[in-house]
Amino acid sequence: MNSFTQRDKAFVWHPFTPQHDTMPANIFIERAEGVYLHTKDGRRIIDGISSWWVNIHGHSHPQIAQALFKQASTMEHVIFAGFTHEPAIQLAENLISVLPSNIKKIFYSDNGSTANEVAIKMAIQYWHNRNIKKKTIIAIEGAYHGDTFGAMAVGDRSLFTAPFTDYLFDVQFIPFPTTANEREVIESFKALVSQNQVGAFIFEPLIQGAAGMRMYSPKVLNELLSIAKRHEVICIADEVFSGFFRTGKFLATEYVEIKPDIIALSKGLTGGTMPLGVTACSQEIYDAYQSTEMTKAFLHGHSYTANPLACAVGNTSFRLLFQEDCQQRISDIAKSHAEFVQELGSDKIREARQLGTILALEIQTQETTGYTNAIRKKIYDYFLNQDILLRPLGNVIYIVPPYVITPEELRKIYEAIKSFLKSI
Amino acid sequence: MNSFTQRDKAFVWHPFTPQHDTMPANIFIERAEGVYLHTKDGRRIIDGISSWWVNIHGHSHPQIAQALFKQASTMEHVIFAGFTHEPAIQLAENLISVLPSNIKKIFYSDNGSTANEVAIKMAIQYWHNRNIKKKTIIAIEGAYHGDTFGAMAVGDRSLFTAPFTDYLFDVQFIPFPTTANEREVIESFKALVSQNQVGAFIFEPLIQGAAGMRMYSPKVLNELLSIAKRHEVICIADEVFSGFFRTGKFLATEYVEIKPDIIALSKGLTGGTMPLGVTACSQEIYDAYQSTEMTKAFLHGHSYTANPLACAVGNTSFRLLFQEDCQQRISDIAKSHAEFVQELGSDKIREARQLGTILALEIQTQETTGYTNAIRKKIYDYFLNQDILLRPLGNVIYIVPPYVITPEELRKIYEAIKSFLKSI
Repeated sequence: MNSFTQRDKAFVWHPFTPQHDTMPANIFIERAEGVYLHTKDGRRIIDGISSWWVNIHGHSHPQIAQALFKQASTMEHVIFAGFTHEPAIQLAENLISVLPSNIKKIFYSDNGSTANEVAIKMAIQYWHNRNIKKKTIIAIEGAYHGDTFGAMAVGDRSLFTAPFTDYLFDVQFIPFPTTANEREVIESFKALVSQNQVGAFIFEPLIQGAAGMRMYSPKVLNELLSIAKRHEVICIADEVFSGFFRTGKFLATEYVEIKPDIIALSKGLTGGTMPLGVTACSQEIYDAYQSTEMTKAFLHGHSYTANPLACAVGNTSFRLLFQEDCQQRISDIAKSHAEFVQELGSDKIREARQLGTILALEIQTQETTGYTNAIRKKIYDYFLNQDILLRPLGNVIYIVPPYVITPEELRKIYEAIKSFLKSI
Repeated sequence: MNSFTQRDKAFVWHPFTPQHDTMPANIFIERAEGVYLHTKDGRRIIDGISSWWVNIHGHSHPQIAQALFKQASTMEHVIFAGFTHEPAIQLAENLISVLPSNIKKIFYSDNGSTANEVAIKMAIQYWHNRNIKKKTIIAIEGAYHGDTFGAMAVGDRSLFTAPFTDYLFDVQFIPFPTTANEREVIESFKALVSQNQVGAFIFEPLIQGAAGMRMYSPKVLNELLSIAKRHEVICIADEVFSGFFRTGKFLATEYVEIKPDIIALSKGLTGGTMPLGVTACSQEIYDAYQSTEMTKAFLHGHSYTANPLACAVGNTSFRLLFQEDCQQRISDIAKSHAEFVQELGSDKIREARQLGTILALEIQTQETTGYTNAIRKKIYDYFLNQDILLRPLGNVIYIVPPYVITPEELRKIYEAIKSFLKSI
């Protein structure tokens, strides 16, 4: 073990990582450029998962570095109550220009968990301000909305939440919709909302990321939203992962006719550079807060709300995202993934799923599919040994690449997957 | 209303701000330098509250801008599970070098709310992993620990939490300690912990910021911590506001003999540049997580955990903070505040409180002291009209300046306070 990993091990506690004497050393990254993470000892690792699904334009993008420097030299930060600034206004305008037409207001926070917490609070206080008692929240089994208590509460009760169950507010879960259970899901949703106690429905549109890149149909989501609307249930789309063209469209909800009332964004919002959250909402939601009374105001905020650095980077990333070459690459990646699925057809795959730039392969194992599937470590090590970072969710291998990835780099990952499948 | 404020009003929903047609326009800040916020129309406003208590070295500090540019050009971000990097390791080493000697591990997150949520989760799972049932959490009346659900739960039930009360887990609150009730507070704490059901005690050491810069004695805190230790209660110091020399020492808990087990840091951590949170803990806490089993791992993380940009800025700010001139200014500000309190002696002040660089003046009004005290708007406008940003907590005027503030700039604020007191 070299001195860097020793220093790391001495004081730094890493997320989602069992801590013990024989744990593998964390890999020391010295620099990153494009799709590559460069290690201290000269390795060049393809970031096949966009560093937890955040990176869009490749690492250390020069235009983003310039934007940061310019903003940091002008106004690194200013309080966002009573004051405002160009980067936050511009980013709000950029987002509003591409969000569904019913979405009218942008509320800033710091990450995906807080974007969802703000969304939940907005929905709860919407009913509170209108003096209507609709306290129940519905979520989908397997959901992951973040790790803070409110975000955990609307997430699946699982390994991740087990120690904290007694501290989470009650939420009604409907089954995850599959081709086999669509009617059952819709009926259970109907039954829940029919009592008019349901105030909000939160969902990851079309794809549950952390649950194993599980996908469900726009049709069933549209039907759920249509039922929700009929019963005046606030619909919250958690697009933290699915936003910014991961699914091929700017939002996953664009595949669905009926639009959500609240949308949570983060991850790709800064192109993978730094944390920032946005909760966007409809005029109707906002109107419930229009009052001179402090009791009706949305009393939520973080010190760094609408941090000018993060907003400036968000604007630069937004501009790059809508350039023709980036849009072309997004559709090329989707096409390439689809062709690879055809090419594969392995009997070692339980299911291959693809939506836009996201490709997921559920590996056939003796165990059931899940985060703790024992093959996880084997997969992770196999690819890392070939200088490819994939971070399987149990037995689900997935690729969520930065959009700058070249066809050759994608091919390298595909070939590694094929050889892995041969090896098992 | 100019086009900037119109654009702002069109789409941006600001925190802690009642929304209505006649709400005042937010002030458009174009650039910021040192203690000054520069408006589009040529005003230069002294940031007397460090933009929500975060700024330390002045705005747009050139060394921080350089550090950001360098880091952004090298490695803007990389996943922090399985990987590590110099900025995160260095910042952990920097912090450990000045934190109490029992503190051994650094866990990163994105802001103050998440730093506290991590702290609470760490304490809860500590008991869960040891298979001991100590589920009760104690907090102090008036507490503010952030706006996410877990942070709200351990905070005071107030105007801020009213719409969400039904969604917050139960917490036992002890009264805020004053000179009049110390014995009562200690007895009520003793009574709570004596049943051995209490797993954690969370507190803002010596000063409750949002509650109105209320201060309490190190002696009573030390006694509470001593009782907590005897009953094996995890002590969580929320130093999000009080850290980084706000109180004259690096941590407010340095005024207290007995050390907390967990410390939450944010705000000043990046010198006021961008969001970052740290939850630091003792070896004993960490040891309860040492296991190869996934069920005992701390399964919490954010996409941007240990963001290299934020960590790099944290290191630059840390270096600047310990330079002689900065340390000198911190002690000069404290001395200056103390002298001003002597100079004041106004009968219009209910109480003057000072701790290190924090000065709070509770204004005598017809109403009781509190966030919604009607004099708030009058105070805010009075100072803003003189190009000084103070943001009173109800009838409590406070100064929490960037440490680069000069004696002349402080004097300008003091004189404005004196003339304000004359005016009422």
